[in-house]
Parts: sequence; structure tokens; C-alpha cells
Amino acid sequence: MTNIHFADRVCAAIQQKKSHAVVGLDPVITRMPTIILNEAEEKYGKNDHGAAYALFTFNKLIIDAIFEDVAIVKPQLAYYEEYGAPGIAAFWKTVEYAQQKGLIVIADAKRGDIDSTATAYATSFFGNLQNDWKTPKKVDSVTINPYLGSDSLEPFVQQAIDKQKGLFILVKTSNPASGDFQELLTENGTIAENVAALVEEYGQRDIGTYGYSSVGAVVGATYPEAQASYRKKMPQSLFLVPGYGTQGGNGKDITNAFNDDGFGALISASRSIIFAYENGYEQSKQAIQEATRAALQHMNRDINTALKDVGKLNW
Amino acid sequence: MTNIHFADRVCAAIQQKKSHAVVGLDPVITRMPTIILNEAEEKYGKNDHGAAYALFTFNKLIIDAIFEDVAIVKPQLAYYEEYGAPGIAAFWKTVEYAQQKGLIVIADAKRGDIDSTATAYATSFFGNLQNDWKTPKKVDSVTINPYLGSDSLEPFVQQAIDKQKGLFILVKTSNPASGDFQELLTENGTIAENVAALVEEYGQRDIGTYGYSSVGAVVGATYPEAQASYRKKMPQSLFLVPGYGTQGGNGKDITNAFNDDGFGALISASRSIIFAYENGYEQSKQAIQEATRAALQHMNRDINTALKDVGKLNW
Repeated sequence: MTNIHFADRVCAAIQQKKSHAVVGLDPVITRMPTIILNEAEEKYGKNDHGAAYALFTFNKLIIDAIFEDVAIVKPQLAYYEEYGAPGIAAFWKTVEYAQQKGLIVIADAKRGDIDSTATAYATSFFGNLQNDWKTPKKVDSVTINPYLGSDSLEPFVQQAIDKQKGLFILVKTSNPASGDFQELLTENGTIAENVAALVEEYGQRDIGTYGYSSVGAVVGATYPEAQASYRKKMPQSLFLVPGYGTQGGNGKDITNAFNDDGFGALISASRSIIFAYENGYEQSKQAIQEATRAALQHMNRDINTALKDVGKLNW
Repeated sequence: MTNIHFADRVCAAIQQKKSHAVVGLDPVITRMPTIILNEAEEKYGKNDHGAAYALFTFNKLIIDAIFEDVAIVKPQLAYYEEYGAPGIAAFWKTVEYAQQKGLIVIADAKRGDIDSTATAYATSFFGNLQNDWKTPKKVDSVTINPYLGSDSLEPFVQQAIDKQKGLFILVKTSNPASGDFQELLTENGTIAENVAALVEEYGQRDIGTYGYSSVGAVVGATYPEAQASYRKKMPQSLFLVPGYGTQGGNGKDITNAFNDDGFGALISASRSIIFAYENGYEQSKQAIQEATRAALQHMNRDINTALKDVGKLNW
């Protein structure tokens, strides 16, 4: 899977799996199945190590259930950082396991800092060829925050291009107060639109054979009209679209995030998939996996049907 | 040190140490003393574990050299994340060691995410009273990024108030391209000024006996006039001021960040202090510590002299 342009890998995998979904691996200990928590407590006790064991065991269960029906997973760093070094170890074990199962991994980290620090963050996620002190480990893509400006993004863009990795720069997020700053109006449109212009500019540096760039954008699913407008502003960017499922939104709401070629949007859902088992299922490992798989297949059908209805399904 | 308002702890410690400095603990492996790298390689080999050993050993050396002349240290997460779980372990060991030496710790993490995830990040840094799976560990304060809007900041503000911790919300950063989005003009001033208004609003919820809030702001040292203007907009906020030392700026440039009471600004420097030994000193541990201490004392004198010149030195 190395030496292939990130966006090409994404498009090929989506087509192979017939799934535009991204499953968020955001394991919350208080919502985890009792059988896993009991196992964790027996082995390590109720502490960071026990929690980390539970996180990885749960993720493994989920990944085994979904890997045939989805192309991409997206672990959210916060849920691992909470448990210190063991939590971070569980994050990297999850990344490795997902990649072994052929999945593309987006680290949802939303990092952003001044240039030298941004470089350190980029090597944290993409690996470092120069520094031989670093144990090799890498994700396929990372989300980043643009508030600090272009020189804070540049090290990520450069490393993504050099190492065949992908980026998703926050443009418009899906939370209720996302407009507080993102929607403030400037001379050249909203702040989010200013960020979109920069994403488009970066994207031009590195377009793959499917016509998409390794520099993508996070564009929340909340408003279909906004999706259409951002799609026009960043025609060659992959959109990572949060807000499907628990945050509102459904298949019909996100067709505007796609181009006519049937590509361009990665629709992310976390809790509605990984905690599907809570909804009335018994808590055997098999029952958990069945509930998870059913929720993902339902999501795939919902999106694919909506795309078919607007003539954007490309298989 | 618990059950004391964060801003009160900061002001008292500054007065006791006669230092407005914050030392950034941003250890870069390629700039580290050979004696420490050799020790690390011998013990663990050239990998994440060896690097983590070097990070903590170096930080300990630095902390031992400076703890009598400074009130606050600020480890930057990126430089620890780079080395995976062992790196994060080195981060928490550094936090613990600094706190044992009576130092206040600001985690320079610049996190920011939607509400549920922001809650997870806040508990990562401030500890969690409810979740008994989490091994207790906490910093005193954390930097956060406002791009996602008020509902992404609220969980941090709430936890900071509840747990007597501090926050520094990015308002205006010190990097050359900080203006790309922060300085875009809206109906109510620049984006940074819009963020400043929100910081001021949050700050009103939790003012300590020194008159300062637990919700502070990051305000770069690059422009003295800007400092004066932000000082007026956020009179009760502590400013974390990067950009002193290697990023430009000196004592004279940052007096406007202080109020007339001689408080209100924490002046941060990293590389100019922790890598002071590179400038012609021999690399014995003692020589490294002497160079570090001399650089810090020079910085303290520079700031205190500048404050005295404008009548803002309060000891």
C-alpha cells in the first residue's frame, strides 16, 4: 500500500468495499460492554492499563466486524490520550491492527501549532525518515486545525506530499457552535471559506490519478446547501464529513458533498456504529459484532441509495 | 497547592520567585547533549524508549537547574507525542517531577474538538473525578484552540473552574503567518478580537483574589501595540506570551502585556533557555545546568528591568 497517492488509495478502497463510510473508533469506557470491562479489570485492574486493554480489545472486536464493509477508520485521539501512555499505546496498536486488516487510518487529532512544533506533530503521525530515534509507526492521514495560519499547515502539507499521506484541514465543523468563528464574515467570505481557499491552493500541488488531492477538508454534514457550496470551492478535495448519525444528518443530507463522479466525500459516523449493540442487543461478543455490522451495512445502504437517487453512484 | 484558584497560585508563585518567565520544555532529540543521548542509547537503544529516556533525563536536568528561579514550565506535547506511548510517559513523568519541585505546569497542547471529545481532552489533562478507570494525573493548565467555537471550549472552562485549573485560549499567536485567519476583519474587529471577547466573557465566571481569571489567553509578543490593545480587551486575563527569545521580542516589547499592578503576563521562552548550553559551553551536566540557569536569570533580569522602567515592577 505504500508509494500510492493517498487520494488514489482512498478512491480505490471505497470502490472495492462499495462504502463511503468512515467508522470513528471513539471508545468511551463508560459505554463499553461489560464482558470486555470485566476481562480488562481482571487482567490489569481499574487503571490506565486496564482501560487501555479494554480500548484495544473493543476496537479489535469492532474492526473484525466491519473490515469487509468499510474502507476507512478514524480513531479520535482524545479517547486514547485520556488514559496516558497506555492509552496512546492502545491507539497505535489499533492503528496497526486496522492497517493489517487493509483499512486506511485517519487519526482524528485536530493538531495545529507553529512551524517547528507542527513539524514535530507531522512526524508524530507520518513517521520520520531523518530521525533514527523514532520507532517506525504511522497513520495514513490526520486532521489538522488551521487557526494558526498557513505556516502552521505547511509542514503537514509538505510531509503528506513527501510521504504519500493525506490531510483533512478543518474548514466547517459539525458542532452547534461551529459558526461562532468559522461563519464570521470577512471581505472574502466567511472564515471557513477563507480556509477553503487555502485548502484548494494546497490541493493543487498534489493531485492523484482519480483527480483528487492529498489535502482534504473537514466539512460538517449539517447543511446540504453549504456542502454544495464548499464542493464548488474545493472541487478536487476529499471531504471528511462528520455529523452523520448521532450528530443529525442522514444519507440524503450529504449527497451534495460528492462530485458527479461519485467520489469526494468520506462520511463519518462513530457512536451510531460502534455502540449499536447498546440498542437492545445482548452483550455476547458475537451479538456485539452482529449489531455493529448491521449498523454499518445500514449506513452503507442509506448513503448508496441516496447517491443512486441523485445519479452519483459509480458502481 | 490544591483548592487554590489557579490565577492566585500563578500570581503568588511569580511574586515569590520574582520571575515572570515560563520555561518551555520542548526537548528536540537532535539538539540534545551527547552525554544524555549516549546514556539513553546504552540503556534502551535508539528507539522510542531510548528517546523517551533522553527526554525525561534532559528535562530533569533542566528543571533542577531552574526551579528556584522560575514559577512555571510549559512542556509542548508535540515533542513527546513524537515518540509514541514512551514519549507520553516521559511527558507525564516530567509533569510529576516539575510539580514535585513546586512548579506550575502548563501543557501546551492546543487541543480543540466538539463537545464530547473536548470533555475527553479536558479530563486527559485535568483528571476525572467520575471515571474510576483513569489513573490520577494532571497538569495545572492547558492551551486550547478556539476554531470550533464556544461549545468546544465550554467543557474545558467548566472543568477548569470545577477543578481549580487554568486555561489559555489561543487568541493571537506569534508565528509569522498568524494573521492569515486571526487578523481577518469582521463586523466586530478581527477574528482574534472576537475570540478575545469570548475569553473575557468566560473569565468573568471565575476571578481569583488577585483579580485574575482562570481563563487566560495566548497573545504573541510580536507587536507591543497589539499587546496593549488586547490588555484593554481582556483586563482580568492572564496572558501566556510566546515569542520572547528565539521568536524575536525582548523585555521592552512585552511590558504592554502587563497590567499596572505588575501582573498579568507569563513570558514564555523555550529554545533560548533549554538549549543555552549549545552556545559554546562544554557538555558536562554541570556546565549545561549553569548555562541554562544563566540564560533564565538573564531573561528574568531583562523582563524585570523593562517592567521597572515603566513602573510596573511590584517587588
